[in-house]
Amino acid sequence: MAKAPILTPQADDFPRWYQDLIGKAELADNGPVRGTMVIRPYGYSLWERMQSEVDARIKDAGAQNAYFPMFIPENYLTREAEHVEGFSPELAVVTHGGGKQLEEPVVVRPTSETIINEYFSKWVQSYRDLPLLINQWANVVRWELRPRIFLRTTEFLWQEGHTAHATYEDARAYATRIHRHVYDDFMRNVLAIDVVLGRKTARERFAGAINTLTLEGMMGDGKALQMGTSHELGQNFAKAFNTQYLADTGEREYVWQTSWGASTRMVGGLIMSHGDDNGLRVPPRLAPVQVVVMAIKGDDAVVDAVRALGDRLKAAGVRVVVDDKTDTPFGRRAVDWELKGVPIRLEIGPRDLEGGTAMLARRIAGGKSPVALDTVVETVATVLDEDQALLLAQSRERRVARTADVTSIGEAVEAASTGWARMPWADLGAEGEAKLAEQGVSVRCLVTADGGVPDAEDQAGNVAILARAY
Amino acid sequence: MAKAPILTPQADDFPRWYQDLIGKAELADNGPVRGTMVIRPYGYSLWERMQSEVDARIKDAGAQNAYFPMFIPENYLTREAEHVEGFSPELAVVTHGGGKQLEEPVVVRPTSETIINEYFSKWVQSYRDLPLLINQWANVVRWELRPRIFLRTTEFLWQEGHTAHATYEDARAYATRIHRHVYDDFMRNVLAIDVVLGRKTARERFAGAINTLTLEGMMGDGKALQMGTSHELGQNFAKAFNTQYLADTGEREYVWQTSWGASTRMVGGLIMSHGDDNGLRVPPRLAPVQVVVMAIKGDDAVVDAVRALGDRLKAAGVRVVVDDKTDTPFGRRAVDWELKGVPIRLEIGPRDLEGGTAMLARRIAGGKSPVALDTVVETVATVLDEDQALLLAQSRERRVARTADVTSIGEAVEAASTGWARMPWADLGAEGEAKLAEQGVSVRCLVTADGGVPDAEDQAGNVAILARAY
Repeated sequence: MAKAPILTPQADDFPRWYQDLIGKAELADNGPVRGTMVIRPYGYSLWERMQSEVDARIKDAGAQNAYFPMFIPENYLTREAEHVEGFSPELAVVTHGGGKQLEEPVVVRPTSETIINEYFSKWVQSYRDLPLLINQWANVVRWELRPRIFLRTTEFLWQEGHTAHATYEDARAYATRIHRHVYDDFMRNVLAIDVVLGRKTARERFAGAINTLTLEGMMGDGKALQMGTSHELGQNFAKAFNTQYLADTGEREYVWQTSWGASTRMVGGLIMSHGDDNGLRVPPRLAPVQVVVMAIKGDDAVVDAVRALGDRLKAAGVRVVVDDKTDTPFGRRAVDWELKGVPIRLEIGPRDLEGGTAMLARRIAGGKSPVALDTVVETVATVLDEDQALLLAQSRERRVARTADVTSIGEAVEAASTGWARMPWADLGAEGEAKLAEQGVSVRCLVTADGGVPDAEDQAGNVAILARAY
Repeated sequence: MAKAPILTPQADDFPRWYQDLIGKAELADNGPVRGTMVIRPYGYSLWERMQSEVDARIKDAGAQNAYFPMFIPENYLTREAEHVEGFSPELAVVTHGGGKQLEEPVVVRPTSETIINEYFSKWVQSYRDLPLLINQWANVVRWELRPRIFLRTTEFLWQEGHTAHATYEDARAYATRIHRHVYDDFMRNVLAIDVVLGRKTARERFAGAINTLTLEGMMGDGKALQMGTSHELGQNFAKAFNTQYLADTGEREYVWQTSWGASTRMVGGLIMSHGDDNGLRVPPRLAPVQVVVMAIKGDDAVVDAVRALGDRLKAAGVRVVVDDKTDTPFGRRAVDWELKGVPIRLEIGPRDLEGGTAMLARRIAGGKSPVALDTVVETVATVLDEDQALLLAQSRERRVARTADVTSIGEAVEAASTGWARMPWADLGAEGEAKLAEQGVSVRCLVTADGGVPDAEDQAGNVAILARAY
């Protein structure tokens, strides 16, 4: 019995598969203003789990949350030359407020380095006030001409960290700490994406930074997604906003700064990393729903059994939903949970109950087998661990299998049609980078020969990771 | 030894005391654009605790979080006549985006009934989709001509719930559920504010609602603060946005709706309810820091002891901070924790250590006494419970002591100079309400004779609560 596919198959049209999945799994809708999005409850629950995990890591790194206004006076943006050049084309401008034309238009924050520095310059007096480690969870606006839901939206949600330090070394170490112990740890161990850590070239750097560290993930179609960035800002904003401190030498010095962010774009990365033709596959550690316990039929014994099992799993710390909506056909409900990527379905009908078992369906590894109700809690814990590891292994295998070592721009472009390319940076250089850009291929990042993060762009042995990117 | 007061005394100038406290306790700063605010880390940690407590109650009430765009096409606002009339004067309007003038200007959400109804009308098909219970945590903008930090700001943070139901009765019951089991429970049992629950008069109702339920708190100066509201929207927005469902009768029917919100204004209410001339007093259940363990001097034994005690308290589930910054004078640190309203200070110096005790200073009940280090964890738990109850009792005592029964408008205005007045609604009426408004006194809400929430404005025995309000 052939089923009509619910989603456009990935192999037929990956972008259409992505859009189909977002609609069918009820993750998000397009907003009424071009480029904006409505994040639906299930999509938002994925984001809430991301927030919770990233927030805990940010607090472990010593930063505190705060909130800065989203309206920024236009003149703030212009104080850092590269920054304004980078962001001007993307600004949303408020010209009227309270029924009147404003004397000075205000922009909706595209990012908050400028307004935050204005306050850092008031709050920082002496070296005792440093380091100052601030984070905020906020919405930001960058007007998008070619929007794509979760990946490039006019308004998106993110966290943006902003810090001030007494020395260059301290700022540099902190940018690296965030890169590794917040972002890499979260993306690898929770999102199960085998991200590559590297540094951006001068061309790809954040507008106003002296160094940008990035995490790049390979998506299901072989393209790259920048999943998060951590910037060293040097003293660029400190000089523009006069953010100085009294050093223990008695001299006034400019602070050294970092900023770093990760956004709802990670939801897009999750979908494109782990999704398949049947829908999303959510890594167990992230999953807002790790297990759904389904009543196949609506008789009392079955409904009692699924509720009791739900309670047992909940007591064991599993994030569980009980689906006893038996007025909807079982098959339709099963397909829906599959679309939503819930790692485990435990299905119970009258016959299962008689045998003292449930049918355990694995969304990630695939397959379906009966498990004894007595031991199902232990089995679930084991399966969740296995499938978390499996997703990361699959992500790694794909990246390795679809990354080619190349020696010329032509080969790089060829490789980028199905995956990534690696090429010595010394052989490519800024000139080669510009040529690749004309063909839609970019240097995602530079890594060292042994896969580390280079200390400098011109470090001997640097390798460029080349790809088409979202 | 007379100390110069750190804050303007409340009795001298309450508004100045409020501003002083917000600055000195490092809660917030004014933003660069008029009416906006920067919420500093300690102020934001109060808000995070509020979010966490309110969010858990909202989820218990069955609502799910989602996120809708902050940019709303101007034409949406105009579809519900009262709504647009109410909000038009406060709108911020984006006229330019991405370097171009927009074809249709977009407004920054002042609240989201309109845009959410646009999507409800797509998502709701049949009675099976109801009730639809959605909440979002978001920033909103209402242009303020007379801003006051936390209380009336151009941009503020809040949660806004939006629901759709099959029947009038179901919507009404849900608005009441939120009023009582989310807001009242949180404000009374966590914020320790003895709020009065009532219904708004037609004059004070939300623009577009058929009924507004409110929670009003009496502040330290006797004025009222609206702490949260829960609205029955009837079918007003459903008709404006054509939000219909297929009933089990086979007929298409308009949904019945509610909306409800509570905002960063609650931080202002917290300050003005519990603050005193020495600073804030934070109720233990809310407090981001319940206990600070302070090293009086920096010798090793003392620092080891405060850290060990901090670990014991943390293990017992207490939210604790260890203050071993002994390079700052002890007195200055103590004053700072007092300003921030941390319920308990445990102070340890060499002599305390010798005697096996710590000095326990109570910010809420006042007083200082030695406690044995052996039993300090149990003592802390008891004191936190006592002081939570004490704050609520004080809030209640103030409200009762400063509420007068009156029989005329003149008496009401007189009573409102120091507190609240109660007057039979039948004797006041909409005409009396308008006269009071000319003198800056408003009907905060109507309650029944026995203090309940009236089912209707014209219900016999309704009593009007009258006050000046923030």
